[in-house]
Amino acid sequence: MSASPRRLLLLSSASVHGCEPFEYAKEEIINFFGSSVKEILFIPYALHDYDAYVSRIRQRFAKIGLDYKIVGIHEGTFATEAVNNAQAVFIGGGNSFRLLKSLYAMDLVPLLQKRVLEDGLPYMGSSAGSNVATISINTTNDMPIVYPPTFQALNLIPININPHYIDTDPNSTHKGETRDERIAEYLEQEPGRLVLALREGAWLRVEGDRATVGGKTGARLFKSLERDQGIVEIAPDADVSYLMEGL
Amino acid sequence: MSASPRRLLLLSSASVHGCEPFEYAKEEIINFFGSSVKEILFIPYALHDYDAYVSRIRQRFAKIGLDYKIVGIHEGTFATEAVNNAQAVFIGGGNSFRLLKSLYAMDLVPLLQKRVLEDGLPYMGSSAGSNVATISINTTNDMPIVYPPTFQALNLIPININPHYIDTDPNSTHKGETRDERIAEYLEQEPGRLVLALREGAWLRVEGDRATVGGKTGARLFKSLERDQGIVEIAPDADVSYLMEGL
Ligand SMILES: [Ca+2]
Ligand SMILES: [Ca+2]
Repeated sequence: MSASPRRLLLLSSASVHGCEPFEYAKEEIINFFGSSVKEILFIPYALHDYDAYVSRIRQRFAKIGLDYKIVGIHEGTFATEAVNNAQAVFIGGGNSFRLLKSLYAMDLVPLLQKRVLEDGLPYMGSSAGSNVATISINTTNDMPIVYPPTFQALNLIPININPHYIDTDPNSTHKGETRDERIAEYLEQEPGRLVLALREGAWLRVEGDRATVGGKTGARLFKSLERDQGIVEIAPDADVSYLMEGL
Repeated sequence: MSASPRRLLLLSSASVHGCEPFEYAKEEIINFFGSSVKEILFIPYALHDYDAYVSRIRQRFAKIGLDYKIVGIHEGTFATEAVNNAQAVFIGGGNSFRLLKSLYAMDLVPLLQKRVLEDGLPYMGSSAGSNVATISINTTNDMPIVYPPTFQALNLIPININPHYIDTDPNSTHKGETRDERIAEYLEQEPGRLVLALREGAWLRVEGDRATVGGKTGARLFKSLERDQGIVEIAPDADVSYLMEGL
């Protein structure tokens, strides 16, 4: 089987403490889209107010000199046509349940799979938009505010991502589960899965079968007991192409 | 319509910083179960290892002098029979998705509704066990590690609960949604709903149509724009019977 021409840039978060939104990843975004992409189709389904969301993305991109025409998928007549004609797609963050439910409702799941995996349509995601690019949204941090038809997602890569990963605070007095405990619970249910937890400021970039973790903050890979148990720290710029091999 | 004989004690969490599990609510638990309850049916479905969970509850109750016989629902032959014969039920915390999925799989949802709402079976919940007592698990904090057949829950009370509620930390540098933002997202989707957010150390006690918030830490009531918008601080010992009226 020849490699998929897929191209993905999956950000943990749009914002990182101490700089403008997307600023920390600006060079990577420009490098990822390359010189041929002039227009980006933005999918705002993860937030309630699509128009406000598209405006905000336009402002944020402009503010840091990211010079693309941003088109909201809801601004045209047919969402499927917009995806078919897109030069590149960006799915923004918000709530993963709302986002996934809308992707199914608008009949975009098989189409996005075809466009990315077969046609090589560049796909950028941040937060919820990175979650839905993976095998499922089981490792989202979001509140389940709506019921999607399934937790299975676009399956553009054969792992799960946990965005906004936050290390356990040893001084916390809160008794809710830590992030690590939540991910461990998931692996109890799905021992075959691999969860790549991206700290804010980190991203996963995929080019065909090659994958690297970028940014300055790094990531952690969670594996179940059955897969030589453990949590592996992943340094910035590490090659993680082995994660693309599937299970 | 005559009032339901329902009796509920819904804890935000089993543990509170600085004391043994359940110790902060010990007097309330004793008062709630009264002198006639000797044996409590424990439902451990929210965690992976049922035997370990039941043992832990036995130890924790014994340690603080809560003198009940604890029976795990999985220890007998039929879960439904155990519920039919129970003097009282306690559903412990863990993962709300896993818990709700198992309640449906074991066919316990209509039965628990009948036993609590019609027969007055005392129901104690903590964390996930409090979540499933409400209209739905839409306001859980848990990770969606499994896909339940619906997010609709036991509907023993006509509101949502957010357990382990934590006030926004103004000094946080993390860019994930705050708890308040998550609840606001839910109310965007379901503007008619009321969300009672219980801080750790607080509980909701329901006796028929009367409801009070107990404990020392208080709660916050979240209402959508449509219901004179706002967040109402609820002091310890406040009467919140108006929340039991439904929508
Ligand atoms: Ca989110
Ligand atoms: Ca939990």
